[in-house]
Amino acid sequence: MVSKDKIRRILDSYDKKNITIATGCSHTSLQIFHGAKLEGFRTLGISVQQKTKMYDAFPAAKPDDFLYVDSYAQLIDMTDYLIEQNVIVVPHGSFVEYMTPAIFESWEVPSFGNRMVLDWEADREKEREWLTSAGVKMPRIISDAQKIDRPVLVKYHGAKGGRGFFIAKDYPEFKMGLEHAKKYHIQEYVLGTRYYVHFFYSPIKTEGYKLSKGVLELLSMDRRDESNIDEMYKLGSVEELKRHGFFPTFVVTGNVPIVARESLLPKFFDLGERIIESSFNLFGGLIGPFCIESIVTDQLDVVVFEVSARIVAGTNPYISGSSYSDLIQPGLSTGRRIAQEIKLGVEKGLLHEIIT
Amino acid sequence: MVSKDKIRRILDSYDKKNITIATGCSHTSLQIFHGAKLEGFRTLGISVQQKTKMYDAFPAAKPDDFLYVDSYAQLIDMTDYLIEQNVIVVPHGSFVEYMTPAIFESWEVPSFGNRMVLDWEADREKEREWLTSAGVKMPRIISDAQKIDRPVLVKYHGAKGGRGFFIAKDYPEFKMGLEHAKKYHIQEYVLGTRYYVHFFYSPIKTEGYKLSKGVLELLSMDRRDESNIDEMYKLGSVEELKRHGFFPTFVVTGNVPIVARESLLPKFFDLGERIIESSFNLFGGLIGPFCIESIVTDQLDVVVFEVSARIVAGTNPYISGSSYSDLIQPGLSTGRRIAQEIKLGVEKGLLHEIIT
Amino acid sequence: MVSKDKIRRILDSYDKKNITIATGCSHTSLQIFHGAKLEGFRTLGISVQQKTKMYDAFPAAKPDDFLYVDSYAQLIDMTDYLIEQNVIVVPHGSFVEYMTPAIFESWEVPSFGNRMVLDWEADREKEREWLTSAGVKMPRIISDAQKIDRPVLVKYHGAKGGRGFFIAKDYPEFKMGLEHAKKYHIQEYVLGTRYYVHFFYSPIKTEGYKLSKGVLELLSMDRRDESNIDEMYKLGSVEELKRHGFFPTFVVTGNVPIVARESLLPKFFDLGERIIESSFNLFGGLIGPFCIESIVTDQLDVVVFEVSARIVAGTNPYISGSSYSDLIQPGLSTGRRIAQEIKLGVEKGLLHEIIT
Repeated sequence: MVSKDKIRRILDSYDKKNITIATGCSHTSLQIFHGAKLEGFRTLGISVQQKTKMYDAFPAAKPDDFLYVDSYAQLIDMTDYLIEQNVIVVPHGSFVEYMTPAIFESWEVPSFGNRMVLDWEADREKEREWLTSAGVKMPRIISDAQKIDRPVLVKYHGAKGGRGFFIAKDYPEFKMGLEHAKKYHIQEYVLGTRYYVHFFYSPIKTEGYKLSKGVLELLSMDRRDESNIDEMYKLGSVEELKRHGFFPTFVVTGNVPIVARESLLPKFFDLGERIIESSFNLFGGLIGPFCIESIVTDQLDVVVFEVSARIVAGTNPYISGSSYSDLIQPGLSTGRRIAQEIKLGVEKGLLHEIIT
Repeated sequence: MVSKDKIRRILDSYDKKNITIATGCSHTSLQIFHGAKLEGFRTLGISVQQKTKMYDAFPAAKPDDFLYVDSYAQLIDMTDYLIEQNVIVVPHGSFVEYMTPAIFESWEVPSFGNRMVLDWEADREKEREWLTSAGVKMPRIISDAQKIDRPVLVKYHGAKGGRGFFIAKDYPEFKMGLEHAKKYHIQEYVLGTRYYVHFFYSPIKTEGYKLSKGVLELLSMDRRDESNIDEMYKLGSVEELKRHGFFPTFVVTGNVPIVARESLLPKFFDLGERIIESSFNLFGGLIGPFCIESIVTDQLDVVVFEVSARIVAGTNPYISGSSYSDLIQPGLSTGRRIAQEIKLGVEKGLLHEIIT
Repeated sequence: MVSKDKIRRILDSYDKKNITIATGCSHTSLQIFHGAKLEGFRTLGISVQQKTKMYDAFPAAKPDDFLYVDSYAQLIDMTDYLIEQNVIVVPHGSFVEYMTPAIFESWEVPSFGNRMVLDWEADREKEREWLTSAGVKMPRIISDAQKIDRPVLVKYHGAKGGRGFFIAKDYPEFKMGLEHAKKYHIQEYVLGTRYYVHFFYSPIKTEGYKLSKGVLELLSMDRRDESNIDEMYKLGSVEELKRHGFFPTFVVTGNVPIVARESLLPKFFDLGERIIESSFNLFGGLIGPFCIESIVTDQLDVVVFEVSARIVAGTNPYISGSSYSDLIQPGLSTGRRIAQEIKLGVEKGLLHEIIT
């Protein structure tokens, strides 16, 4: 892990009037660039073999410059070049995943948010420790497959983007679905409707929904759209289709806008608050955007199955604001909120509190 | 029922330049406060044991003041206090439900809309009389369970928020699903897609889609998101799951934005018009926001299964406008439209026509 | 087919400062009129037995005038009258369908877009030739029903609006579902999630995502909402319901907003580019709005099952802009984009390149 001191020295050397906001050319890059441009920052698109012609079609989100590299290894070699340009990287999920968390952690380019969160987010058991110690309700873990007594979701270790999940309702189904020689993890499948709630935590803003330090904002919500599970029902039930050799998969292909029943909002804020407060003690605090991925049961209980500790693709329907963020500032996106936070850090001389 | 004269005398005593718009702190309160603030009103949040810290996170929707009470009984005691502050209450569904319609009807604080509608809305048979006499197509009632010859929805009397519905396709399924000792009501389950159409009727506005008196507006549409029915299919079919002991429930957890095929709009307006015209005769007219909850069949017939006679939570995706309301005024929400109507009532000296 | 020369002579006679944008009163007319008004055009609603009172409810989308006719035959008789008013017709799907493509092709009123596309769009085999020659992946055709070895979609010839489709998973199901004496077409049913991507191709704009000539824009995306298939799962699985005598239908009743995973956008642009480049050679180019109707598999492959060569109803959720069009110009709809294109054609003296 690159040290806080090291990053602070680099930040001290930056020309604060000429900061460049950079991110990888996918995931949520359109809104990150769009937001940064609206707040007056120079922008840089990092392309690791990605095509960038697409940005020509979206002038308000086209970065001022691109940096083309063939691999993440080559990007590491560009560290000094990026620092010379006063770059702050906004790491989205794809960027961290493809660079690998281990390499990202030690990369010396100043990065928005707290890198320490990666250790707690990438490891399923540490994540569970974090959330349950904060009093957040999660789906039960079933350690013995023979004791499956309710619907479960079986996840293979290291599976990415939803491939390699399956649902079983009892032990025979579990055995039928299991691919041998793969390590798995069984958790209760909670029946209900999914809400992915997009929060933003600022340690340096003072007005708003206050925590022990800083403020918590709720910017938007979505539901993930997953292939093939979300349109499989048209063909027959999941059970019938298995008999025909078709199995459900959970690969995220897009996002659908949604709002929650207003009486759920205080519950969501309570969960967001607990997760942030707990993060202070465990690793110095989650900073910036995060997402609570939850199921709302028919008892209106909120069960959290995952936390994403950075900007999620579910914010993409809200590039021009949401029913929630519009109540903070009309048209506010998570991408723009990140740029505002960096601007506030510069103004208050507190960049080192939000950049690691 | 508090008399019209009584309310008119109270309204006459009001300082019309200092009206306070108040509502209960849940349901659609964010957009009601937001809209009222945009139109320049003072706002008051009524908290009956609700937490209100959430509003700190939404400055554009945070009411100027809160009134904290422990119970609705205590709120009744605050009647004089509210009247002193020139309060007009905007009653949303949760507010009326928790206060109970009977108590709300006799509460002497001026309230937006016609309270008389409550009698016609709360009683299933009167509602059916209202709608069918207006020529609105509704799902058939099946009075003898043994004659179930198509899919039906069985609703228990007095069930709230979707708990206690079930679907049956024939008599054996009906018997299997029924909980003994509960009173029920069987109606045809109409196959199709659901559209919840949000209208606004103004008796005092003169420009627009004219009725025999006043104008009708269509502000937005949504589809309710219900736990657990709306994600149950992922686990297996409803039938299979029953065999595993899981039964579908219909508890509203949120709302999804949607638009209807444009050729359906004249049909929706026709239905809205019939429902309003009929309400004039039956109880002096439904005033302000209402929602037609409908199913569109594959023959493009519109079948109405319920009418809500006030602002519905389905308007929450549209706090900054919809594809429909934007064609009236950019960014118009139902909450703001209510505030505009009160403002127009003040300007025209016609508050008594929209406040009861 | 009316000749290009004929239309050009008519256009030459037009008073370019007083062009009237006209369309039929349904489908996407609200956004077409709204967009035209925002760009300063006079607007004319063509009602072929449609009620037009609805427009009173949407002042920003109410056309300046209406032309009422009883039939499309009568509309043909109005050709000179329309030309006198400098009318440019924006043909949407319903307009072309009800007028019939054959009559529309020879109608002498100047029309936005290239009429030649109709021949390639209306004929399933020519459409397939167009798309596959462009390297676009489509669902496989199964010519021998006995060889059905995967889920298939069976479409009856000439079926409109989704009626007369059915899904089969094998030959026995196919035989059970088939209505005798109807001509059919069998194609592979691709498992995945549907994205309807709304593009705009301009041959005369010079800035943006450049093709060999002109630029390509991505304005929005939706998912169609179809009755009864999209809510049938609540009753039981499609298979179970067939045993009860209920069959899935696919009649479009509305549209749901959606965004795609950002890494899919370059793939969508690539498909749009191929389809346009191919159209130059085949029929002189598709002009203006078009829609790629696609399925995204769990391998993130994009399979195109249809192309619509004009404005689609799926753009209706975006009358005030989308997460994509807002990055071109805040609040931009496809309807407004069409009006901008006509305005640009006037300014550049290039109307004849976009009007046929």
